[in-house]
This record gives sequence, C-alpha cells and structure tokens, in this order.
Amino acid sequence: MNEKSIASSIGGGSYRVTDKFYSRLRNLVRDQVIPYQWEALNDRVKDAEPSGCIRNLKAAAEKTGEKHYGYVFQDSDLYKWMEAAAFSLMWSPDEKLEQELEEAVSLLAAAQQEDGYLDTYYILGDLSRRWTNLKDHHELYCAGHMIEAAVAHFRATGRDTFLQVAEKSAEHICSVFGPEEDKIHGYPGHEEIELALVKLYEVTGKQQYLDLASYFLSERGKEPLYFREETEREGNRDYWKDGVLQYAYYQAHKPLMEQERPVGHAVRANYLYAGAAAAARCTGDNALYDHLRHLWKEMTEKQMYLTGQVGSSEYGEAFTFPYDLPNDTAYAETCAGLALAFFANQMLKIERRSEYADAMERVLYNGAISGMDLTGTAFFYVNPLEVAPEACKLDQRKIHVKPVRQKWFGCACCPPNLARTVSSITDYAVHRTETEIFQHLYLAGEFDCELSGVPVHIVLDGNYPWDGKLSFTVSPQSPVTFTYGLRIPGWCEEEYILRVNGEVVEKNPENGYVLLTREWQPGDEISLSLPMRAKRIWANRHVREDAGKVAVQRGPIVYCLEEADNGPELHRILLPRDSFFTEKFQQSLLGGVMTLRCTAKVENGEPEALYTTRPPEAKETKELLWIPYYAWANRGEGEMTVWVRDGR
Amino acid sequence: MNEKSIASSIGGGSYRVTDKFYSRLRNLVRDQVIPYQWEALNDRVKDAEPSGCIRNLKAAAEKTGEKHYGYVFQDSDLYKWMEAAAFSLMWSPDEKLEQELEEAVSLLAAAQQEDGYLDTYYILGDLSRRWTNLKDHHELYCAGHMIEAAVAHFRATGRDTFLQVAEKSAEHICSVFGPEEDKIHGYPGHEEIELALVKLYEVTGKQQYLDLASYFLSERGKEPLYFREETEREGNRDYWKDGVLQYAYYQAHKPLMEQERPVGHAVRANYLYAGAAAAARCTGDNALYDHLRHLWKEMTEKQMYLTGQVGSSEYGEAFTFPYDLPNDTAYAETCAGLALAFFANQMLKIERRSEYADAMERVLYNGAISGMDLTGTAFFYVNPLEVAPEACKLDQRKIHVKPVRQKWFGCACCPPNLARTVSSITDYAVHRTETEIFQHLYLAGEFDCELSGVPVHIVLDGNYPWDGKLSFTVSPQSPVTFTYGLRIPGWCEEEYILRVNGEVVEKNPENGYVLLTREWQPGDEISLSLPMRAKRIWANRHVREDAGKVAVQRGPIVYCLEEADNGPELHRILLPRDSFFTEKFQQSLLGGVMTLRCTAKVENGEPEALYTTRPPEAKETKELLWIPYYAWANRGEGEMTVWVRDGR
Repeated sequence: MNEKSIASSIGGGSYRVTDKFYSRLRNLVRDQVIPYQWEALNDRVKDAEPSGCIRNLKAAAEKTGEKHYGYVFQDSDLYKWMEAAAFSLMWSPDEKLEQELEEAVSLLAAAQQEDGYLDTYYILGDLSRRWTNLKDHHELYCAGHMIEAAVAHFRATGRDTFLQVAEKSAEHICSVFGPEEDKIHGYPGHEEIELALVKLYEVTGKQQYLDLASYFLSERGKEPLYFREETEREGNRDYWKDGVLQYAYYQAHKPLMEQERPVGHAVRANYLYAGAAAAARCTGDNALYDHLRHLWKEMTEKQMYLTGQVGSSEYGEAFTFPYDLPNDTAYAETCAGLALAFFANQMLKIERRSEYADAMERVLYNGAISGMDLTGTAFFYVNPLEVAPEACKLDQRKIHVKPVRQKWFGCACCPPNLARTVSSITDYAVHRTETEIFQHLYLAGEFDCELSGVPVHIVLDGNYPWDGKLSFTVSPQSPVTFTYGLRIPGWCEEEYILRVNGEVVEKNPENGYVLLTREWQPGDEISLSLPMRAKRIWANRHVREDAGKVAVQRGPIVYCLEEADNGPELHRILLPRDSFFTEKFQQSLLGGVMTLRCTAKVENGEPEALYTTRPPEAKETKELLWIPYYAWANRGEGEMTVWVRDGR
Repeated sequence: MNEKSIASSIGGGSYRVTDKFYSRLRNLVRDQVIPYQWEALNDRVKDAEPSGCIRNLKAAAEKTGEKHYGYVFQDSDLYKWMEAAAFSLMWSPDEKLEQELEEAVSLLAAAQQEDGYLDTYYILGDLSRRWTNLKDHHELYCAGHMIEAAVAHFRATGRDTFLQVAEKSAEHICSVFGPEEDKIHGYPGHEEIELALVKLYEVTGKQQYLDLASYFLSERGKEPLYFREETEREGNRDYWKDGVLQYAYYQAHKPLMEQERPVGHAVRANYLYAGAAAAARCTGDNALYDHLRHLWKEMTEKQMYLTGQVGSSEYGEAFTFPYDLPNDTAYAETCAGLALAFFANQMLKIERRSEYADAMERVLYNGAISGMDLTGTAFFYVNPLEVAPEACKLDQRKIHVKPVRQKWFGCACCPPNLARTVSSITDYAVHRTETEIFQHLYLAGEFDCELSGVPVHIVLDGNYPWDGKLSFTVSPQSPVTFTYGLRIPGWCEEEYILRVNGEVVEKNPENGYVLLTREWQPGDEISLSLPMRAKRIWANRHVREDAGKVAVQRGPIVYCLEEADNGPELHRILLPRDSFFTEKFQQSLLGGVMTLRCTAKVENGEPEALYTTRPPEAKETKELLWIPYYAWANRGEGEMTVWVRDGR
C-alpha cells in the first residue's frame, strides 16, 4: 500500500452540483425525505406507526421513567437522519433544519450517561444489562451511526457540540472493549462502528479510535467465538441456529482474513468491508487490503445483480452462493446496495481502479436509487429484478417483494440511509491526493481543491447519465502540474474521444483511468466523449436464473420493461438479436428519462391445456418501450422485468 | 349422477399382477418398506430417531404412566403401515407379517378407551383435553387412518377384529360430532376421516358413517368459523395467522362449495376432495360432484406439475395460484401426488372420464413413485423438477429440496403412504359396474369379476409403460354381453389400432374410453396398439417458470436429465426442435428403464465476467441421455432437470 496513493473525497460545500440527475434526487431528499422523517421521528405523522425515537431520547434525558419504544436499534434512525441533515446543510443552508439538528444534539447530550454510554434501549430499560448481547442488540451499531452523524455535523457546521457527545461515547466504548484483560473481547453483531471509528480518527487524529476499529476487525470470528460464549453465558436467543447461516449471518463464523467469499447479511458484510478498507488505508495494512480486494471480486464478479445490488436471499437478507442471482425472489435491499457503494468508495481511496467506481456507479444509478419513488415519499426495502404482483401476494416465497413502494417501514433503515448517501453524493464523485485528482462519477458541477499547493477550480459540464459528452474547465490559480484522472467506464467499450484544448489525446487508461499529467493553465479545456448507446447484456454462463435471457443497458443505466408500457406476461416476450433500439429523451415521463424502443416477438404458446405437444411460435411482433430500472413502479402496480428472453 | 354409472374397484386377491413395472415396486414395498417400517415403529432401527409408535400404544394399553413420544399424529404412522401390510397380504400371504399385524390389532384393542376413544397423544396425556384442538391435533385424521387400515384388514383377512376396534372408535366419534345441539360442530384440521367413513359405510352399510362424513364436509368453513372460535376459546396457537394462507391452509376459510380453486396444504386438499367425491358417489350429490369436477380442472389444468405432482410451495406445503409452478423450489410432496391419485380414483368411480385416469397415471408413474429409491430404503418427501445440489445446501429457499433421498423422516408420512398405495395399485387399475368394466391403468395381470351375473376371467398382457402394445384375453364362463372400456391415454395423440379377434375395430372413444360392447365368448382376444414415442412437451403460456423450456415424455413416462449422464450446468443445454430421439431399453440401468438419446446444443456463454455484451453462442453439440424422472437421484448427488431450454 505504500506505493499506492491514499485519496480523500472532495465533498460538501466545495462541490457545487449542477448535475440534473442527482440534483433531482438531492432536492427530493432535502424537500421531502428529511422533513418527513423529522416528523416521523417526532411521532407527528398521522396514520403511521410511531417511531418513538425522539420520545425515547426525551425520556432518557428527562428521566421520566417511560419505557423504550420500538426496535433495539431505534436510535439509529435518528442518527441517520442527523447525518443526512448535516450533509444537506453543507450545500443547502436551512435555518429551520439546522435548529432541529441542534435540538437533537442537545437531547443527546442530555440523555448521555455520566460515563459516556448512550443507548436509549438500555437507559430506559435495565442499564445493568448493557453490553450483554453484542450479537443482536445493536449498541455498537447505534454508536457507530451516532459517530458518523457527529462527523458529518462537524464538517457541515464547524461546531463540535455533537462531536463532543460522540467522542465521549467513543471514549467510553474504548474503555469497555479491547485486548486488555479487564475489557470485553467482543465485537458488534451488526458492523458499522468500525467505519465510524476510522472517520472519528480522521477528524480528531486520536489513535485510540483507529486502534479500537482494528481490534474489532481482528477479534471478529476468532475461536472461541465470542458470540457463542455470550449466547450461552447470557442465555441470549440464537436466531440463526437452525439455518444455513448461523454465525456466518454476522460474518463472525471465522476471522475476516479467512473468509473466502461474502457471506451472511449483505448490509453487515459490506459495512464490515467498508470499515476494514478504511482501517487498512489508515494503518497501511496491505494484507487486509488484498483480502478485501479478493472479497470485492468474489462479490462483484459472482454475486452482484446487474443493478449493482447484492444479497440475493430474503432469508437472513443474505448472500447465498456464487452465481445464485434469482430475479423474482431477490432481496437486494436498498441498504445493501448503498453499503456496496460505501465499500467501493473506501477501496477507491486506497487504490484507483475503475472496477470499484464501475460497481459504485452501477448501484448509485440503478439498484440503490430505485429504493425511492419520484415523489420522495415512498420506498422500497427490496429491489427485485422481476415482479409479477400476483406472486407477491399469494406466494410466501415472494411476500417480501412489494410491487409498489411503501410509505414508511417499521424498520426504517433504508429511507434515511438513502437520504444520507444521496445528500453526500459528492463524496463519491471525486477523490484527490496531494498531486492527483480522480473523477469517479461524472457529476456535473464545479469544485475547488488544492493540488500541489495551488488552488484549482474545476467545472464539469454534461448531461450524464443520458449523454456521454462531458466537458471540463480546469482553472488553477496559477499554472501547476498535477494529474487529472478520468475514469473510462466499464460500460464504454467503444473508442472514446478525449481532447485537451481541442487536441485529441491518445492515451491508454491505467486501471481504467486516463491520467492527464501536465502543467495545467487557467482555462484549460478537456472534452471527453463516451459513446453511449443501448446494448444487450448477457450474464455469465454460470448464472442459472439468467440463462437464455438478455438485459438492456445504456451507459450506466439498466433498463426494464413494465406492464404499464408493454402489457402483462412479460415472460412471453423474446428480444431478437437483430432488433434495433431507438432512443428518445422524454422530459415529461418519470421525471425525465431516456426511453428505448425496439421491436420484439411475442410467443403465442398453448392458451388452454396445461401441457401440450404443440410447439409455441413467436410470430407476432410487438413494440417494446424500455424505461430506466430505477424509475419502475411509479405508475401503479404491474409486472416488471429486467431480463427478457433472448430471441436469438 | 343418477344417469352415471357408479363403479367399484377390482382389487386385492382377484387381480394377480404380472406387470413387471409395478411388480418391482410392490415387491420393494413388501420386502423392504413394510419390514423396515415395522422395525422403525418398534424403535429397533439403529441410528434412527425412535418412532415411539408401538411404545406409545403399549403404554396406553398397559397404563404404564409413560408419556407420549413424537408428533401429535404419531399413531397414524402405524395405521398406514397396517393398511399397507393388509394390502400386501391380499396378494402375498406372509405368516410373520400377518402375526405382526394381529399383534398391532390386539394392542389397539387394549389401548382403546371404554367409550371407544383411541388416540395415544391424549390417552398418555390429558384425556380431558381431547377434541379441544381439532384444527391442529389430528385426532380425527388418526382415526381416519385407523378406519382405512381396518377396512383393508377386513378385506385382506375376512376377520373383523380390527374392524370392531375401528367401529367402536367411529361410533364414539358419531356420538361426539354432528348437528345436534349437544355435539361438537367441528371438523378435522387435517382431512382424512371423510374418505375413511365412506369406506366404513361401504363395508358395514351403516348410514351413520356416511352421514357423519357428509356432516364434516358441509360444516367445514361455515361462519362463524369453528377453528377461529376454537382457537380463541381454547387458547390454541394460530400457526398461519400472519401468512397468505391462514384458514385456507386447512381449506376451512369458506365452505367447500364456495371454494373457487384448490388452496392450502395440498395433501389435505386432495384428501378432502377424495372424501367428498366418495360421499357424493354414495349420496348421489350431483352438485357436489360438479363442484369437485370444477376443482379438479382448476388443479390439473392450472396447478399440476408435468409429473402429476401438486403443491408448489414449501410454505404450508401448499398450492399458491394458477400457473405458478416453480421447478427448483417445488414442494410436490410424495403424499400430495398420492392424494391426487386418491381423488382421481374416486372421481372415476362416479364418472368414467379419461382425464381423471390420465392424471392418476401421470402421478403414479412419475411424481409419486419418485418418492422411493430403487432399493426401497430411501425416500423423498419433496419431488422437485430441477435440482442443483449446491442450492439445496446454501439457499434457504431450497433447503426443503433434498438432492438425494433420505433414510426415514421424523414426520414419516410419505413412505407408508406410498407403501399402502403401491400395494393396492390394483384398486386403481380397473373399475367395474354390473355390466361394464373399465381398464384405467394397463397393469399386466389376470383378474376375475362377475359381469351381468357371469364370472369373467381377463388376462392382460403387455410391457407397459415401455411398450404401447397390449393384448387381452377375455374369458367369460359362458357367453355374456357387457362393455369393456379401454382407456385411450391422453399422451396417445396418434392413431391407435384396436383389434378384437384380429379384426380392426374403428370406434371413437367416449370421454376417452373405447367402449367394446358385445357378447363376449370364452377366449376372445383384444389387442390394442398405442403408438409410443418420445415427444416434446411445452407448458401453457401462462406458466412463467417453463417459458422458453421444453420437456420430454414417452408414453406416460416423463423424462429428465441428470448430471451423472450429462455433466453439470444443465441450464446451458438447448434442445433443438429438429433433434431426433433414439430409444433403448437398458435392463441393467436403474432397475431397467427405457432411455432416450438425442443431440443437443450447449451454450457457451461468457465464462469470466459476470455481465458482458458478448452474446453467448450455442455451437457445441452434445449427446444427451434421458432417464425416467421417477428413477432420478439413484446414483449419488448431482444436478437434475425435467425442463430444458427450447432450442427452436
């Protein structure tokens, strides 16, 4: 890792986003999701199950004697909201929101115990039982989300009020966990605090936080298993005892370094990997990075949906095994896709490889943002690649798959997770080192950073993801030499054209990035033209569920067919290989999307008998209308599919 | 129904089976299954979970104070064994077996309570709680199996020792249940006693048994729901409350006559329909028959696997919805297939329609007998149409699917159910009325019956299901006029040739049967030649899971591909429409099977990347070997599929 460049994000206030695509999403989060969730956290949403979040906190702060309400991880809903709110404030000041945020910070400070402990489930319950169920009681998970929110709050406001609360909590945790004889030799059942502690280390510079993150990472899965011993000692419930997962559900069946492939709960797995990557970057642990890279490849090359989503099984919200990617029973939780982006982003900070950014882009333009509807008021937890509404109601195997987005969830993890990611999208777009800057996502906007000691202003213009034509204006305060790395996306297989000040640059990408190293002058112009056209995609031959099927992608956008446009029984459609796509941007459709049209065949098989010797024929032709996958289910209930039959 | 002919079986001792195919199965049941199960029932099988069945009975008989062991329906294992043993004795006398059977009868008589009650779960537990959980405690189900076994025992031995016990029990039940004010207005959670009571009525001629069967049938599902009230009153557990089924699991969500399609637990559903059909026959209830015929069509024309199996979902072992027939997560319980045969057989007794016999044949030659291995010592509960062993171990959705048969089950319903059906196969083969005889299954053998008052001896020769050439010798004691109905199977779409004494008979079938009505002379010869060749089968266009796929059937036998013959990754095989089948009977393979060979293509898709724009090609050719589905998984663990991709 010593030879690798360690990069950091350019985010928040210094990246002014003009990008239409992500602006729409960011604005929805700011205008709908964040205000709605604040009302929800305060139990002020009519006809919705109460959250109890603020109520719990007030009860803890004011010692009212009230009991805890909601899940054991209820506090984390507030923290994710706080993080999203802080990110939003970075680019869109809002006095009222800032005040609400401060109100929450004050409550947290008041609820926090003398010793720094802060978790309302135990404060309002039996405090003597805290830390007795690390496996399932999410105290460290909640603490992690608090720390992440506090770091965001500090970045957004410059004030350390929240950071003080978070540090007091983290110090308490440092005093409870660690290798020393008198400390608990455990680790969280739901990973999250690892990444948070590294972020806290980066903000405060305090080594103990990085050390504790590393301790959690290395202790995990060591024999004798902490979770097994804890379960026996405390008489805790053993949820996953009888299934295929057991401790693998928690990625705790063996040490991380011995885990051959992603297993268990997909959100936890990616939170673990993201935290481990962050720690590896800070500690320079090459062996850990190499192993994470192996896990990354096992995940993205064998267990990732075309939409960038992961976690194919509802059971345990988990990975199953390589190439098992069922479309109609997919779990593909919104949070799992986001977590994959967190992992990718951390890997990119260690090593610039476009495969990380490709998957990050895949999920951030498809399978994660499908989690929210066009109004920002309804959400998917599960993001299937094929839906027949009848099955979602009558087949218990698919009951987790919803054909339309839901207003809010009892377990409300996905909406605020999406909110915090969307409102910090700039953190994913560009990374820089002292002398290099890498453009991972082509998010139109302008940003400032210092390279080789000189302030540089960069303007990126374009209409991504609908158009592959991009232009950049690079304006250093004074001429300065640095490297601008432009990612050539994996979806772009044709010749791209890159020009600097009008002159074509012919340069092979290195690990997927064209590296433009030169003395940049104020006003230098770059143009990058990535040919973007609709393409057929086939899955690896080991993917049983996609055998004989084909999907359609244009640029980074994965497409789907909906019943609303194409009628029912999508399984009867065959896409001939010689059928040609026409494209049209439809401003008034689904918030503005590029649609694709082509001619297909419809198989007219036996309409009466259940089994027949009469072969089906596919003579009837049909015009298909394809829409971006992320925009599905915005027009009522109906069938949807990403994969259609390959007409050959 | 008055116009319809009410038929009865010709079974037991009067049908001497020479049929090679079913003789092998019957002998396995006699030589392996029945003796093994007797040992199991007596807890004498090493390394197997004890059954506790005989132990429970002895404890009840001898009032030892021991507690009940096993499932609440544990007694039924013994009853099904007793029924199988009785059927076996009908055609294969066996002193030792008869003695064991009598031993069991004596135990039952001793365990039976003064008032006739007989269920060891409550006798060894709290007898005051009997009949307080009709929904889930199987007392009426067990009683039903006892009655069926007693009727078989009476048929086999002519002794009424067991029948006395059964009648005492049935009389007790008649005193407890019924429309009268002081009786319980309930019905069984697991149907079974309905059919049993009709059988008891037929043997004893006592109207009260038929009346009680009718009462159970008509009371079921009436509002206010007995099960809902019982659950509340008794504080019973409400197992299916939160799922898609609830009372539909028990077919008790509404009256049978209002149920539009088969729902819930597939075994229970078919037991209900079989019992209802038997009652309809005896009561002459045309409306009930018509409704059952509607349910039959809904089931066999929309929810039946190609193998004749039903119940596509593991959840509730249940039906889901029309055309939902997943192959890899199929439940298709051995018992459900058998139950469908019971239903079909009862329908045939009311009305001679080959669609009943076609489905009965389909399941009795494919999806039910696949439940047992070639040695008669290992069994499938679940009979999938597609298996990838890795998925059965790592994907919780498929954990119920076993890639190899198991030795015995804790819930041992399937093996003895298969045993009792196989050993009474002659009951399904031929039905007769006073003046007609119908050949439903072409089971080689010779049998005697009286038609129009004259004893008739018939010899059926052939090598079904491998050969469609059949010959019959009809030998009445003296010339007599009657109708011999020969079924023209649904699988036979070509011209068949029918000859009587060498002369071709050209006659259209009526409802699927050619009716030969004439004055039969001793030694009359019939020959029927049903063209039998391998054919491609396609599913109805609404069956999503079979879209783009094709299966192979020859005569009544459904074929499959196994990894043992064809290598792994069966999903990459395409069967071209012009590929020709060659057939070969291989005596030494899988107990002697007709194999099919043909040339197919193998798709060589992307071997590395998970997603690609490079289209897969299917240039490589491959020789396929097809084996009968029922014989799969007899050569270790491997992939299997019934449906392969349609190569067009």
